[in-house]
Amino acid sequence: MNEFETIARFFKPLSRDGKGIRIGIGDDGAVLRAPRGRELVIATDTLVAGVHFPTDFPPRAIGHRALAVNLSDLAAMGADPAWYTLAVSLPKIQTAWLGAFARGLDQMAREADIHLVGGDTVRSPVLSATITVVGTVPRGQALRRSAARTGDGIFITGPLGLAARGLALWREGARRGRALRAFMHPVPRLPWIPALRKHARAAIDVSDGFAQDLGHLLQASRVGAEIDLDRIPRNRRDPDSLGRALFGGDDYELCFTAPQSRLPALRADAQSAQLPLFEVGRITAGKGIHWRLSDGSPPPRVVGQSFDHFARSRMQG
Amino acid sequence: MNEFETIARFFKPLSRDGKGIRIGIGDDGAVLRAPRGRELVIATDTLVAGVHFPTDFPPRAIGHRALAVNLSDLAAMGADPAWYTLAVSLPKIQTAWLGAFARGLDQMAREADIHLVGGDTVRSPVLSATITVVGTVPRGQALRRSAARTGDGIFITGPLGLAARGLALWREGARRGRALRAFMHPVPRLPWIPALRKHARAAIDVSDGFAQDLGHLLQASRVGAEIDLDRIPRNRRDPDSLGRALFGGDDYELCFTAPQSRLPALRADAQSAQLPLFEVGRITAGKGIHWRLSDGSPPPRVVGQSFDHFARSRMQG
Repeated sequence: MNEFETIARFFKPLSRDGKGIRIGIGDDGAVLRAPRGRELVIATDTLVAGVHFPTDFPPRAIGHRALAVNLSDLAAMGADPAWYTLAVSLPKIQTAWLGAFARGLDQMAREADIHLVGGDTVRSPVLSATITVVGTVPRGQALRRSAARTGDGIFITGPLGLAARGLALWREGARRGRALRAFMHPVPRLPWIPALRKHARAAIDVSDGFAQDLGHLLQASRVGAEIDLDRIPRNRRDPDSLGRALFGGDDYELCFTAPQSRLPALRADAQSAQLPLFEVGRITAGKGIHWRLSDGSPPPRVVGQSFDHFARSRMQG
Repeated sequence: MNEFETIARFFKPLSRDGKGIRIGIGDDGAVLRAPRGRELVIATDTLVAGVHFPTDFPPRAIGHRALAVNLSDLAAMGADPAWYTLAVSLPKIQTAWLGAFARGLDQMAREADIHLVGGDTVRSPVLSATITVVGTVPRGQALRRSAARTGDGIFITGPLGLAARGLALWREGARRGRALRAFMHPVPRLPWIPALRKHARAAIDVSDGFAQDLGHLLQASRVGAEIDLDRIPRNRRDPDSLGRALFGGDDYELCFTAPQSRLPALRADAQSAQLPLFEVGRITAGKGIHWRLSDGSPPPRVVGQSFDHFARSRMQG
């Protein structure tokens, strides 16, 4: 099967009629019409076998993940998914592998209402997938990392560290359970998009670990933060849960800030939409992150990208 | 140097103020404003070391090429370059390599007036680069492969087969000369964009070899073609020039069709803009390509993707 037949068989069916698609897959480029009054948001992420997912990961999970991690970036910008392109590098073209990969991709795409508009399939000794997503957002409403202000509350949309535990369990041979699902099927927090645009100031997705990603947000906003370690949602039955919550990657929860004046409306909207919401701290005028424990005891000492005894457990360095 | 430092040092300078960029590199996604009355054109292409370019190719040429082949797709659609994203996979982060790669990319980007708006830098055992380009075109003016009609003239924007000869020479150890330049520094035919939008019906870029790419155009348009082999521009001092012109890839010339009524204006515009233009045949109501020689002698027999004795010389299968 050559590249053209591959595209036709597996990927063309993913290029269903999406809004604004005037020419889809099959030409030198796709032709798209952006909705009036909206800005475009574009993001790109590559997954490499053995670096971002285990080499024995099922192809369906790879397809799902390749799109999910990109959708998470759109969610963090407050952008509604619209279109995506896919570049996939494969050691060889195997129909069973491609079929499962395309199904994983398609399932995620349907949930997100995002449409494939272009692609490239090439041979490479190493399996990898690069997806570029395009979303749209009403003018001026995109959320940036640099917009946090002193006094803002800091929120997380779900438990952290589950994916890191899932990876550790995968390596031990486990193939089921909640943590493993979190690692294998990260769910981009798309349902949060309307509420974020309404209430949030700054946002970022937690892909590299909470400590690191919050750090990026703080640096971009030139502010600091106080974080209550006891309020970080995590699996307390896991003895390494705190380290994993702070330094484990791949959770794809959102971290955002919102001004105090919006908090009642934010909580009400989260509740009525049944969206989990955890307030974990506050933006300060300082620099860096001040970790606190509610009983006032001294928090564990943070060394580099981990606590004293927590090795960083994410696959990617 | 970690990913963030890499991006900051080498790629952020490439994200200069481009038109419509509201938020550039450094957030979860870029925020872009498309010009009024225009449609977006999006295309993506991956280059893998050892597949699309020799493993000993200079990094500057890789950077240039990665963007050039994508720009060629925009040119074939009649779209003006606007923005691009870059995903690069590297065995390790070497500053000298990255600096040269970024320079090659930057030079091509400046010539094309296209601006980097996002990227991902990851580790991989195999060097590769995926670029996604976004261009814009006035509504309804994008050129598609499927628009050719019986009677249209078929045109080529420059000599074919040079890049294939350049690759053969590279393998023999040559490092300079015209053919080698054609292979190492493919030049996307961006100056053709305005004239294409004005005069052309269907267009495609010649990346996989003229016979194959013209075949795609004919299939999409459900027409056939008569091609005068004697009129195909090529280097006649190369004894394999005809085979390379038809089946060698990587030329990145444009192939397009235009109705007979537009030919005088097309020729005049090409001449006043000093754009090389070669009429090589005509669209027919038939199927497939009928190869002709001007003296009426029988043309060489085409077998699969080559003439009897011409092996396909492109790197990619």
